[in-house]
Amino acid sequence: MHDISQYQDFFVSYLKNQSVNKEPKNLYEPIDYILSLGGKRMRPVLTLMSAEVFNVDYKKALPAAMAVEVFHNFSLVHDDIMDDAPLRRGSQTVHEKWNINTGILSGDAMLILAYQYFEQYEPIVFRDLAKLFSKTALEVCEGQQWDVDFEIRKDVTIPEYLKMIEYKTAVLVAAAMKMGAIIANTSEENANLIYDFGLNLGLAFQLQDDFLDAFGDPETFGKQVGGDIIENKKTYLYLKALEFSTPEKASELGKLFSLQLENNTEKIGTVKTIFNESGASKATQEAIKEYTFKAFETLEKMDIEFSKKEMLRTFGENLMGRKV
Amino acid sequence: MHDISQYQDFFVSYLKNQSVNKEPKNLYEPIDYILSLGGKRMRPVLTLMSAEVFNVDYKKALPAAMAVEVFHNFSLVHDDIMDDAPLRRGSQTVHEKWNINTGILSGDAMLILAYQYFEQYEPIVFRDLAKLFSKTALEVCEGQQWDVDFEIRKDVTIPEYLKMIEYKTAVLVAAAMKMGAIIANTSEENANLIYDFGLNLGLAFQLQDDFLDAFGDPETFGKQVGGDIIENKKTYLYLKALEFSTPEKASELGKLFSLQLENNTEKIGTVKTIFNESGASKATQEAIKEYTFKAFETLEKMDIEFSKKEMLRTFGENLMGRKV
Repeated sequence: MHDISQYQDFFVSYLKNQSVNKEPKNLYEPIDYILSLGGKRMRPVLTLMSAEVFNVDYKKALPAAMAVEVFHNFSLVHDDIMDDAPLRRGSQTVHEKWNINTGILSGDAMLILAYQYFEQYEPIVFRDLAKLFSKTALEVCEGQQWDVDFEIRKDVTIPEYLKMIEYKTAVLVAAAMKMGAIIANTSEENANLIYDFGLNLGLAFQLQDDFLDAFGDPETFGKQVGGDIIENKKTYLYLKALEFSTPEKASELGKLFSLQLENNTEKIGTVKTIFNESGASKATQEAIKEYTFKAFETLEKMDIEFSKKEMLRTFGENLMGRKV
Repeated sequence: MHDISQYQDFFVSYLKNQSVNKEPKNLYEPIDYILSLGGKRMRPVLTLMSAEVFNVDYKKALPAAMAVEVFHNFSLVHDDIMDDAPLRRGSQTVHEKWNINTGILSGDAMLILAYQYFEQYEPIVFRDLAKLFSKTALEVCEGQQWDVDFEIRKDVTIPEYLKMIEYKTAVLVAAAMKMGAIIANTSEENANLIYDFGLNLGLAFQLQDDFLDAFGDPETFGKQVGGDIIENKKTYLYLKALEFSTPEKASELGKLFSLQLENNTEKIGTVKTIFNESGASKATQEAIKEYTFKAFETLEKMDIEFSKKEMLRTFGENLMGRKV
């Protein structure tokens, strides 16, 4: 086994060799661009790590890891168009640097390229990877649609929100890990357990993201702190605050989340106070712990060496304790 | 074997049973909508026909035919966004009826759904179908990108134009037929020959489309006659007219193809006269014949019964003689 930063290095040097210097340039340059912007490469790293947890060399998992990363970036390119986002990882989004049509078409090509990476495996593994990938990719689309739908709905429930982040974020983390298991040809039980491990870790990761968006340290958190509050996003924090508040406080919060302001400093301050005083912050941190522990429970049932379990547990603890 | 209208009926009743009445509605309703708009269903019909040419029941080819049709409609939904088209088959386009974001996301889901139809085949056939499909889908994206690029280029050559329509249109016709061959488990040689048959027929089909767009009978041609001339599209007719004209005539034509007019009656008349007098119309009709005969030549080499060859030939002749 290797550590996270080693897997990151292995993956990034593989990715650099994949650069598609192909014609037509206007289709392939945006693909190279978005893939080179960086990021933590968490999903492909999980595929490599999972392969080695099940005793196969990470190198065998590189094409599947690449498929996961290409798909993730496809979803970013299309989501950024839908969200009208100007920036991604501090750089221009594809549709800003080129135009919307380029964003649509290059994104489409990336979705297809992702499937092509599975062609490097033998037929049964290819079929299993592509099936898991299609199911997951469709769920990610459904999650994105729920997210869009929730923007204008006022009656979103906590279970609905959890289902949305499960589909939009957690299933890809889960599938990334299960791909490592499929490539390693481990038991179906192990493969399903690592999927559940990834799913719960993915949920914890997204709830942590919601929490850090409001309470992260501006010095270390990559994005603008309070971004979700500015955009009136109905996150777990917001929904829990509504649930725990008196009708008056809930109504105040609802009103704050209908404002579109120039200067958001006061709004962010007031909302964070409500999040804290209502108990929503505490409930969110507890939910993060709960999903992380659920992930650790599935780990117990897995038929792998103790050292591998320790390693996955450390990864989960780092993710839970992360500041960025 | 059955006749075309029977295959159309078989396919349409299969398609009607596939209606995805699923949540979230805003993702799946647009998919049902675009798939129900109709059209000739030429591509899926070719998959069914090809399966029976190689002696397997068309029923076995229905899921692959569906994948081809779903993919074709995915490309229409995304292309219509890029072309800002309000109408498709006489009805509102998806992004007009809903919005651009819905068009993007429902299109993405369709591309994934297309792959899922191949899961109904056993692993080797699944792998072969999905590989052919990915290669083809990527070429269709490349063809669309060339088409977009050509809009602003003034130096498009005839070979470049032919490559563009090959990728944007012909490869999918070819792949639709090869899928029938893959499902029937015929020889690789037969599979490649039916691909070439479809490719050449697809090229003839698109050139016929170019020709009918200018010279079709307004009574029977489905679209607005002269649409390409109004939009200054550099079709085969236009490029051949430039090639055959004196520098003065070519410059006149170039100027006409930079105009954006309210009333296009005069422009269409003048351009059609140039197309006729330059010999471009004749050259286009000859090219249509040439590609159709190329398709018939590959037919000769195919190891199938004479009656099957006759049937494919009749299909090609009808396509070449079509008025719509």
